[in-house]
Amino acid sequence: MKATLQFIGHIDTPYTAIEDCPNNVDLNGPLCQLVVHEEFINGLSGLLPGQKILILYWFENTDRNATKQESNNGEELIGTFALRSPHRPNPIGAAVLPIETIDHGVVSVKGLDCLTGTHLLDIKPAILQEDSNKNTK
Amino acid sequence: MKATLQFIGHIDTPYTAIEDCPNNVDLNGPLCQLVVHEEFINGLSGLLPGQKILILYWFENTDRNATKQESNNGEELIGTFALRSPHRPNPIGAAVLPIETIDHGVVSVKGLDCLTGTHLLDIKPAILQEDSNKNTK
Repeated sequence: MKATLQFIGHIDTPYTAIEDCPNNVDLNGPLCQLVVHEEFINGLSGLLPGQKILILYWFENTDRNATKQESNNGEELIGTFALRSPHRPNPIGAAVLPIETIDHGVVSVKGLDCLTGTHLLDIKPAILQEDSNKNTK
Repeated sequence: MKATLQFIGHIDTPYTAIEDCPNNVDLNGPLCQLVVHEEFINGLSGLLPGQKILILYWFENTDRNATKQESNNGEELIGTFALRSPHRPNPIGAAVLPIETIDHGVVSVKGLDCLTGTHLLDIKPAILQEDSNKNTK
């Protein structure tokens, strides 16, 4: 089987330019909407407001070849896999956030870090929790 | 850009049959090795033993069309996005585990839940932590 992705929807955020995107998710950030395509809406049944979900999404227009790059402090080159940068061999973003609301295939969460229109790859019930002590992007 | 994945390595686990795989990761499970392809080994620089990483991997031979399926208790059909099942539109597995050792492109962790030979997609420094109170696969 070829490893190709299908987009299950898109993400609406307030950010239309890369420079506007925060470095990481922010549990107290603005509302964002996961807009699930019609054919996948049944897949949301069983999810509830307040429940934490792991959201996977696809960063476009990234450098997929950089094995080392600057960290935020810019002082040294660090391995891509030691950073949360979107520039990586497989530019998949991951965030764990609680569901604010679910309404007809639209799941609202707070504080995603991606551009509006970002392709949505997956939603899973979280067995992972945000460690707010770290910011490693 | 087409959303295609490139495998950055593979995962060695003790499991050669689906029925042997645990339902979820187990922080106290057996040692597993993330074997990173030569061309990506530089990407590991900066990662340290003891550091928690988010590991993304690719489940093969799954049903990518099921929007509802049985949960472990098997009592009712639940939406795919409310389950951790590998049967989903984009069969990407996610686990957060601490690094045991790193040696020449081989990152050892404990307790992954996938078959040996599973394709490795990404390693990120974790800003996510396992919530051991949940088992939702």
